[in-house]
Amino acid sequence: MANAAVASVGSALSDSLVKTAMADSGTMMGGELGATLVSPWAAQVFIPAAALIGMAFAILQWSVVAKIPVRSAAAGDDYLMADEGGLEDASVIAKVADIQEAISLGAVSFLTTEYWYLTIFMTLFTIIIFVFLGSVDGFGREWKPCDAKVPTGKMCAPGTAVAFFSAVAFALGALTSTLSGFLGMKIATYANARTALQARKGIGAAFAAAFRSGAVMGFLLTANGLLVLFLAILGFKKYFGDDWVGLYESIAGYGLGGSSVALFGRVGGGIYTKAADVGADLVGKVERNIPEDDPRNPAVIADNVGDNVGDIAGMGADLFGSFAESTCAALVISSLSSMGTDLDFTAMSFPLLITASGIIVCLLTTLVATDIQVVENIKEIEPSLKRQLLISSVLMTPTIFAVSYLCLPAQFSIIVAGHEDKVVKNWYMFFCVAAGLWAGLIIGYITEYFTSHQYSPVRDVADACRTGAATNIIFGLALGYKSVIIPVFAIAGAVYLSYSLAAMYGIACAALGMLSTLSTCLAIDAYGPISDNAGGIAEMAEMGPAIREKTDALDSAGNTTAAIGKGFAIGSAALVSLALFGAYVNRAGISEVNVIAPREFVGLLVGAMLPYWFSAMTMKSVGKAALAMVEEVRRQFNTIAGLMEGTVKPDYKKCVMISTDASLREMIAPGCLVMLTPIIAGYLFGVYTLAGVLAGALVSGVQMAISASNTGGAWDNAKKFIEAGNTEQSRALGPKGSACHKAAVIGDTVGDPLKDTSGPSLNILIKLMAVESLVFAPFFKEHGGILFGGNS
Amino acid sequence: MANAAVASVGSALSDSLVKTAMADSGTMMGGELGATLVSPWAAQVFIPAAALIGMAFAILQWSVVAKIPVRSAAAGDDYLMADEGGLEDASVIAKVADIQEAISLGAVSFLTTEYWYLTIFMTLFTIIIFVFLGSVDGFGREWKPCDAKVPTGKMCAPGTAVAFFSAVAFALGALTSTLSGFLGMKIATYANARTALQARKGIGAAFAAAFRSGAVMGFLLTANGLLVLFLAILGFKKYFGDDWVGLYESIAGYGLGGSSVALFGRVGGGIYTKAADVGADLVGKVERNIPEDDPRNPAVIADNVGDNVGDIAGMGADLFGSFAESTCAALVISSLSSMGTDLDFTAMSFPLLITASGIIVCLLTTLVATDIQVVENIKEIEPSLKRQLLISSVLMTPTIFAVSYLCLPAQFSIIVAGHEDKVVKNWYMFFCVAAGLWAGLIIGYITEYFTSHQYSPVRDVADACRTGAATNIIFGLALGYKSVIIPVFAIAGAVYLSYSLAAMYGIACAALGMLSTLSTCLAIDAYGPISDNAGGIAEMAEMGPAIREKTDALDSAGNTTAAIGKGFAIGSAALVSLALFGAYVNRAGISEVNVIAPREFVGLLVGAMLPYWFSAMTMKSVGKAALAMVEEVRRQFNTIAGLMEGTVKPDYKKCVMISTDASLREMIAPGCLVMLTPIIAGYLFGVYTLAGVLAGALVSGVQMAISASNTGGAWDNAKKFIEAGNTEQSRALGPKGSACHKAAVIGDTVGDPLKDTSGPSLNILIKLMAVESLVFAPFFKEHGGILFGGNS
Repeated sequence: MANAAVASVGSALSDSLVKTAMADSGTMMGGELGATLVSPWAAQVFIPAAALIGMAFAILQWSVVAKIPVRSAAAGDDYLMADEGGLEDASVIAKVADIQEAISLGAVSFLTTEYWYLTIFMTLFTIIIFVFLGSVDGFGREWKPCDAKVPTGKMCAPGTAVAFFSAVAFALGALTSTLSGFLGMKIATYANARTALQARKGIGAAFAAAFRSGAVMGFLLTANGLLVLFLAILGFKKYFGDDWVGLYESIAGYGLGGSSVALFGRVGGGIYTKAADVGADLVGKVERNIPEDDPRNPAVIADNVGDNVGDIAGMGADLFGSFAESTCAALVISSLSSMGTDLDFTAMSFPLLITASGIIVCLLTTLVATDIQVVENIKEIEPSLKRQLLISSVLMTPTIFAVSYLCLPAQFSIIVAGHEDKVVKNWYMFFCVAAGLWAGLIIGYITEYFTSHQYSPVRDVADACRTGAATNIIFGLALGYKSVIIPVFAIAGAVYLSYSLAAMYGIACAALGMLSTLSTCLAIDAYGPISDNAGGIAEMAEMGPAIREKTDALDSAGNTTAAIGKGFAIGSAALVSLALFGAYVNRAGISEVNVIAPREFVGLLVGAMLPYWFSAMTMKSVGKAALAMVEEVRRQFNTIAGLMEGTVKPDYKKCVMISTDASLREMIAPGCLVMLTPIIAGYLFGVYTLAGVLAGALVSGVQMAISASNTGGAWDNAKKFIEAGNTEQSRALGPKGSACHKAAVIGDTVGDPLKDTSGPSLNILIKLMAVESLVFAPFFKEHGGILFGGNS
Repeated sequence: MANAAVASVGSALSDSLVKTAMADSGTMMGGELGATLVSPWAAQVFIPAAALIGMAFAILQWSVVAKIPVRSAAAGDDYLMADEGGLEDASVIAKVADIQEAISLGAVSFLTTEYWYLTIFMTLFTIIIFVFLGSVDGFGREWKPCDAKVPTGKMCAPGTAVAFFSAVAFALGALTSTLSGFLGMKIATYANARTALQARKGIGAAFAAAFRSGAVMGFLLTANGLLVLFLAILGFKKYFGDDWVGLYESIAGYGLGGSSVALFGRVGGGIYTKAADVGADLVGKVERNIPEDDPRNPAVIADNVGDNVGDIAGMGADLFGSFAESTCAALVISSLSSMGTDLDFTAMSFPLLITASGIIVCLLTTLVATDIQVVENIKEIEPSLKRQLLISSVLMTPTIFAVSYLCLPAQFSIIVAGHEDKVVKNWYMFFCVAAGLWAGLIIGYITEYFTSHQYSPVRDVADACRTGAATNIIFGLALGYKSVIIPVFAIAGAVYLSYSLAAMYGIACAALGMLSTLSTCLAIDAYGPISDNAGGIAEMAEMGPAIREKTDALDSAGNTTAAIGKGFAIGSAALVSLALFGAYVNRAGISEVNVIAPREFVGLLVGAMLPYWFSAMTMKSVGKAALAMVEEVRRQFNTIAGLMEGTVKPDYKKCVMISTDASLREMIAPGCLVMLTPIIAGYLFGVYTLAGVLAGALVSGVQMAISASNTGGAWDNAKKFIEAGNTEQSRALGPKGSACHKAAVIGDTVGDPLKDTSGPSLNILIKLMAVESLVFAPFFKEHGGILFGGNS
């Protein structure tokens, strides 16, 4: 309501502005409207400087974590001795180191195999990009006068150059994302054992180890992404000169590259992690009645590897993709605005400046957790993590205002499909970016409300376990559906406000606003699987119940932050997809997407179906891969004598291999669905049908992704609520092994693929289809629609 | 592909026609384009004649069923004696009669309570309709020159008259639907015991009793609906004279009335049936280990009542609503076409003529099952029912061609929002109607493939029970998602083809085509719950395993046809909603629904969320009502001595009351969501946002409804597959009571609310919001959009 009112005011304001401006001059260029207060060179210094500061900070955090010795590199036997309390037994510490090595090796082996497939795919796709885009003007190599979009009569680069640089940007995006994911995984597998060992010193030390390692991942990824993108722009500018439309259209390939890697990371990683998890649980917990993370379970290493490849590398690639895509969407749209036509480099770099200042804000936020309000007991963990979100959002708000005021001209004009240009004042952009930022915070807190067992929704689900697994599932599904309502209104409010103020540029900037605290979000997010792994290692190394209790507390808070992270990822994916959709519409020369016309409606209907098709594939993939894992685990229990007694080690590697193979094989079909749909829709049915498909997939996918994630998170925490037994209600439902608990375990297992595979993978579906459409828009415009009689 | 190609041809054809016609005359009226071959009086005779023939046929079938005596009306003790084999025990037959009475009383008691609420609601809403629509022109009472929509300078009826007749039509629609639902329920509760008793004579006799009773329901409902609608048109015409736009806009109230009753029937009935079913199973099967339909279970009568109020009255009201709405949508659109402006009554009655000829075709089809290819053994049941669908579709196809050719002018023009009028040849309409008919058949067969345990999808789900309930649920959800793909393509193909040929009129007629075999669909559909009840009665009256085996076979076929029926209901709801959406757009004066504009996009996003919100409510309602039932059943088992031993009867009435109260209380919230959303969206945010909401709810709701229905159907039949044990695979999974079977029962219980409450209720959500928007369109156009700055 409040948003709508603000929007009305904003809309009325901007409307009257348009009228005034129109009265002054027929067409309006930003040059008449003022210049930025910050000079281009200052922007050119600030962006890489912020990125380098971010990297330095990441290295600093890493060096702190690295001081925790696990196994000395020099001598093979020089273990860390406990400083106070905890276990002193060297054999336990040796076990920790061994397990860490096994997890790290498993993760590296998966990622190397995955990157091998990725390389083939990327090479092929780089060629496709070059050929498709080059064919638009018949591989012309001449500079030509720009078309009507740029009204100043400039010369524009040949199509072949756009095709070539798009392909280069694509490769750069893919490489950067891959590198970030790999580093994140290395850090996580480096930190997991250290967190477990630090738990001997106390909860504070363990928390610090996990959180700092998460921050390494967060800052490295953001800084890397920003720096490479910035350098690519500078580099491409050498060729493109004043043809900024060509320049930034080529840069869009960076978003596609990042997003393609996310397909492998999220979908492949998602299948991996849940195949291992479900497979391990089905035999271990259900059939053999051994606890989670028991070292006798052959799938236990694969399970822990899964946390790293799915929740660290996959999540990282997903959010890297969102960052790259929203930046590219904003750049493509603004290159057609007065900022682009006036060659105002500072203003054009506004999206990058938001991210750059976000790094600094997140850095200050991190210090609060690591140095100012240090966690000292279990109760402080969750509030401390949640505080990170709030602090970063609060600090970011004035920062956004400053950046908007300093780095944008007092007013500028934005192109609007099918309408007159829109005049935007610089302070409008503050509201756009802030709308995204705060919508993200709302989504985060709502997600927490629906997935944390502190609140009634999860407790109601736990209560439903009294009457068995069926009512647990029914209540869980209902909870997931219900949890969609407020996030969708938050996104809708942000969309309405930012679109009213600055059309599609506003939406792209709202997406950037949601992602402006990316480093902090990623730090909190990566903290979860690191703690989860630490718990696993503590169990496997038999570090004792006191340590396990501490790692459990870390893990439980991580579950909630993981759900919050997924909420952010989905929210930002929705805004990003819409921004990309807007950029696609601009680039494809569409003036309206009228859903009462048959081509668009059919696209909309089929698009809304795609998330179902995609989820059917990913869920069945997890099911099939898990069954393969179950058979292997059963085989080992049945054939390896002494396994159940703990005298003989299981064959962990075989399980790692099964997960690796199954996940990569099973991701081919959903991957093809995502990658081929825009090409088929655009080529056969034209740009209008494709626009319908994108809109349908977006509005349907958002709902499914949110509900799937939250349902799964709620079931997980309903189970944990019963296990914890720290309230009267939970004691009545428990303890572990009771009928209620068994019903809760069934819910948890069903939720696993929903929350970690099919749900989050939908982000990729909607974003990747949109960015692919954006990159190939000129091709579809030129050659598409062969079945529906062209694009007219 | 084939559809698209045909569409391209059709589109090209119609485009060239438009151009030729436009060259001849600036504006084009159908009068220039030819008259219909059938005269208006012939149409005026044929429509009521067909309706009366349908009614006579229904009465004939009823009289055949009525010959089966249960308890003589004259003397209290003159029971039917078995003619051949079966049980002769008079006490068993007395039990049958008692149980039938209890079920019938329970159903009547629920419906009377429901109708009490319904009356209040309807009265209120009749007033709202009158006030809202009357306020459009300030309760003017003068005839005025028509606005631009009707270009001939005719006089149009005052707004108050349209408001008044809309309210009357609304009341008529509501009454007719209520009557049809009530009669259907009476017939079903009349037939259930007779089917059980006939099972003593053999499977053929039992099948005939159930199927004939289903036919009574099918023909009565269709004929009633058609006759009342036709008489209303004739009656209203007396006032409206030549103002056919006002006439048919008022008639649209009939669709809203029918659909509002469906809200109560589908949602209230759906909650009732599943609260009773889930509650009975959770205590009976799971806790007390007594079989389904055991007379010791206090909820068993409520469960059987539920089949009648949910699956008979609810399903009937839903499909009645679809019929009424699609007819009204077609009438509203064509009243603005040249058929309307030329006052061509035969052509205007095309939608009614399709339904009328459908009754005759269905009558012939029914004879095949009852008299030509009579069922003689268990194996013939399912093929015989499926054959009904195929035969009716095959017979209907040339009939459609004949009606299109004879009852429409050679060509006529249809209004297209935001474009020039479209010229349509009469044979185009054959393709439109046939597209809907055959899309329906495809959906039916695909639904069967995904929900019958004859095929691999359900068998795979059954197989997943090996590893427990969790994998069963995962595979079942994946199956439901997957089952959406082909139906959506079928709907998309029908939409594209029919829109290309005849714009929104084509889509409304496609919906009518899908519903043209309504009598047969309803007969097959009602057959299911009647057989289900017969099985329950056989069990409760302890008629012995031989009888139970026969009723089980009837019931199993009924499960599949019920799923097919749901597929039809959803498919037709999608087409109907789109047609209503098109009529709304026309009436609201919207020329385009551009989803890259913020108002529309926000509407689209929020609209796509509504099915989730609605499902969250309905699922949670079932859960809560079921828990209330569980407590009552437990209480009775714990406090009534001798209940488990079968020496004392449980208090059935208490359980019936709990289901009645819970379902009516729990339907308020989802009912408000459906009824208030269009009013809030239209009044606060305007006609464009509302258009977005309708489109979003439509494309998202269809997917959810199909997947929910099919997932539930698959789990049900996976359980039945394991129980049947008639293949090697199913024997390996069974028998009843095995671990696999227990896992399957959990899936079945989760599926109950999905397939019988939340899934089918979504039909109502999308249709009712659309028809309500259509009826209130003038109000929103005049007064709406107060927050978004009006409708400009």
